[in-house]
Amino acid sequence: MLKQCRSLLSRSLQSAKWGDGFESRAAYSTALQDFAATGNANGRVFAPYTIYKGKASLSISPVLPTFVKMDSDIGGLKVNCRGSMMLTFCPAIGERKYDWEQRQKFALSPTEVGSLISMGAHDASEFFHDPSMKSSNAGQVSKKLCIKALDGGNGYLISLTVTNNILKSNERFNIPVTTAEFAVLKTACSFALPHIMGWDRLTNQSPKGIKGSPSKVNSKQHFDLEWDR
Amino acid sequence: MLKQCRSLLSRSLQSAKWGDGFESRAAYSTALQDFAATGNANGRVFAPYTIYKGKASLSISPVLPTFVKMDSDIGGLKVNCRGSMMLTFCPAIGERKYDWEQRQKFALSPTEVGSLISMGAHDASEFFHDPSMKSSNAGQVSKKLCIKALDGGNGYLISLTVTNNILKSNERFNIPVTTAEFAVLKTACSFALPHIMGWDRLTNQSPKGIKGSPSKVNSKQHFDLEWDR
Amino acid sequence: MLKQCRSLLSRSLQSAKWGDGFESRAAYSTALQDFAATGNANGRVFAPYTIYKGKASLSISPVLPTFVKMDSDIGGLKVNCRGSMMLTFCPAIGERKYDWEQRQKFALSPTEVGSLISMGAHDASEFFHDPSMKSSNAGQVSKKLCIKALDGGNGYLISLTVTNNILKSNERFNIPVTTAEFAVLKTACSFALPHIMGWDRLTNQSPKGIKGSPSKVNSKQHFDLEWDR
Amino acid sequence: MLKQCRSLLSRSLQSAKWGDGFESRAAYSTALQDFAATGNANGRVFAPYTIYKGKASLSISPVLPTFVKMDSDIGGLKVNCRGSMMLTFCPAIGERKYDWEQRQKFALSPTEVGSLISMGAHDASEFFHDPSMKSSNAGQVSKKLCIKALDGGNGYLISLTVTNNILKSNERFNIPVTTAEFAVLKTACSFALPHIMGWDRLTNQSPKGIKGSPSKVNSKQHFDLEWDR
Repeated sequence: MLKQCRSLLSRSLQSAKWGDGFESRAAYSTALQDFAATGNANGRVFAPYTIYKGKASLSISPVLPTFVKMDSDIGGLKVNCRGSMMLTFCPAIGERKYDWEQRQKFALSPTEVGSLISMGAHDASEFFHDPSMKSSNAGQVSKKLCIKALDGGNGYLISLTVTNNILKSNERFNIPVTTAEFAVLKTACSFALPHIMGWDRLTNQSPKGIKGSPSKVNSKQHFDLEWDR
Repeated sequence: MLKQCRSLLSRSLQSAKWGDGFESRAAYSTALQDFAATGNANGRVFAPYTIYKGKASLSISPVLPTFVKMDSDIGGLKVNCRGSMMLTFCPAIGERKYDWEQRQKFALSPTEVGSLISMGAHDASEFFHDPSMKSSNAGQVSKKLCIKALDGGNGYLISLTVTNNILKSNERFNIPVTTAEFAVLKTACSFALPHIMGWDRLTNQSPKGIKGSPSKVNSKQHFDLEWDR
Repeated sequence: MLKQCRSLLSRSLQSAKWGDGFESRAAYSTALQDFAATGNANGRVFAPYTIYKGKASLSISPVLPTFVKMDSDIGGLKVNCRGSMMLTFCPAIGERKYDWEQRQKFALSPTEVGSLISMGAHDASEFFHDPSMKSSNAGQVSKKLCIKALDGGNGYLISLTVTNNILKSNERFNIPVTTAEFAVLKTACSFALPHIMGWDRLTNQSPKGIKGSPSKVNSKQHFDLEWDR
Repeated sequence: MLKQCRSLLSRSLQSAKWGDGFESRAAYSTALQDFAATGNANGRVFAPYTIYKGKASLSISPVLPTFVKMDSDIGGLKVNCRGSMMLTFCPAIGERKYDWEQRQKFALSPTEVGSLISMGAHDASEFFHDPSMKSSNAGQVSKKLCIKALDGGNGYLISLTVTNNILKSNERFNIPVTTAEFAVLKTACSFALPHIMGWDRLTNQSPKGIKGSPSKVNSKQHFDLEWDR
């Protein structure tokens, strides 16, 4: 299953899974209604958590989902492109120097984040991504992320391998991560998980809707309950 | 006890539990003051977490509580309909095709969410719901949700059984859930729990009340303390 | 140490602990600058989590701290009355009837909340409160809250005993709590803890401050760092 | 690595780590665009969690990061000075009297916070800070923070030692911390960690961006994905 939104094509593939055409028209027609989750570009905030090690650096940062207006009578927004936790690896090119131009990225889906935050002190996880999945180019380039507990429970090794079968290239990044750094990753990813799922948008935080727009009982709300079928 | 707000009747049954008539008048009279927690319909956000498996899909999404103005001198809002975590099951009708029309729902109450998030790697939980509970039709339709750890601690099986004694029908949905997917469920449900309880509305987030409306010491506040009786 | 703010007197006792008169003047003079954390009364939200059992009910709800303007050049707010988790017990007076008039309250301080959320499946905690502590009436009335794991790890017993040595009365409330209900208490209290400490007010949530009031480097900020002495 | 922002010099050292000059110009030129994370000084909130013991007190409070506008076409903000958890120790100078003038501070970085919140009931952590690190005065003054589980698992001892080799002085603060108090520290620090990292600014909380500024698909967003290189 695709981890992120890369094209309108990939979105339409995804919605086609629904047997009765559910949501598929929306997926094709909503390009012009697409919104960045963080509003305009000026509002974007860059605050990666970066671990600098001898041979490479690893930065981690949440990528928020985007939303799209629903083509329905009741209005509302639904998730268009899912969010992810973006891992960025840069190779070291000298003492305390890292080369951003040679970076490689790996985007953890919500379920992959679930895998990371449920890892015990002796566990290992592997994730495989193929940018050309479901196309004729499938298998040409692949990425493997491996997170493995070190012997003795003193931290983890996070490694990314990028294999390009056309260029015959193979890049590998190794980042040893201490228990303290991994605790930051777990805590920060646990905090970020509901946000990359878009669930923070479901909350009651904004009291303005209530103060400003008192309204009658919304009978449509009752349709959304357990016994509505 | 009812898991959700389905009618004014069920609400009045609920408030009648209070011996001295506490809150019962409010429960009857407040229909026109009812507010959707998310403000108007245009503000609704749909961001379910969905697990697609061979025979069925499972989507989970929080349903926020609704609030109602209190009929008292001090004003304020109280929870009218409690929130829940809504589980929606759809049967598979082909490869990667799921039939939304045949969906079945199960709404976890806050306490049932507490049961889910406290499950260990070898535990099981069962929940029974009857839509006609406390009416003459009790027992005609019933739903059973079962969450059971798989042998070996490698994930869980979530199954929903809907029995209709009038139609003589029996539907069953089985969703095998990996450890990573269950970690997402637990983390997301832990995040959502205070929100479906309405506790996110109790917080200090909005600094406007303080900046904009400096006021004298509110002596009523002191009535709310431990020794007020 | 006092758990909550009951009078200007108790506040002044508290600030007198600071050797050099730190903050003590503020404590005496700020009554008229006191703000309720939730703004005006109309903004108050009531969303207790209530457990109904055969002999009594237990409601739990956060009480937010209040803030007061600081009498200093740099301005700002500081916590005036600390927040707490308020437990309210009501005796049963019939089937599904509970008497609110006979309620008894117990306010857990942040540290007592820390004790509750760190309890294991076989632990016990006891808390003693005296409303007249540090006065000549100390010992006349006392409250004891006991939280104790049940044998076999299947839940907890929460009991409150209120002893009045003048009226020669002794009230006791017993609430058996399931593992699921206790998980809700722990999760909800963990969520609420930073809020009753006032830490949610320290966060970056409001982007308006940044967009609306770009300003020069605030050199005072550098005074607040590790090496400022 | 520097734990906090003390001067433009330290910031420029930090950005010089990037091999290709990445961000370094921004670091030199942005002084006048610097913003305090909490907006203007009037918005600052002081809500330390303080533990009072016989020989000293320990207050803990988050210090939020500051942000700076990016000198790029896409705009946005990036973290300028990282946040921290500030520990402040005051010696006791009488019964319930503590001397604020003789305070000593220790600022935990996000990774050091990760170390604290991942401590088990039998673990120990040590942190060393040198205010003159990387200058010719390195080693003249040093601070050591030690957190150590007490025998029997009943709490922790937190101690700070400040050594000044020029003044030939050596100060030491010892704070015994109960299990409940440490649970508050862990919960509050876990809550605060994403905030001192600046990740709360990355979230979807503000719905205004979406309602107020509907816009076309932001094609730049697609550059930020996993396969952008």
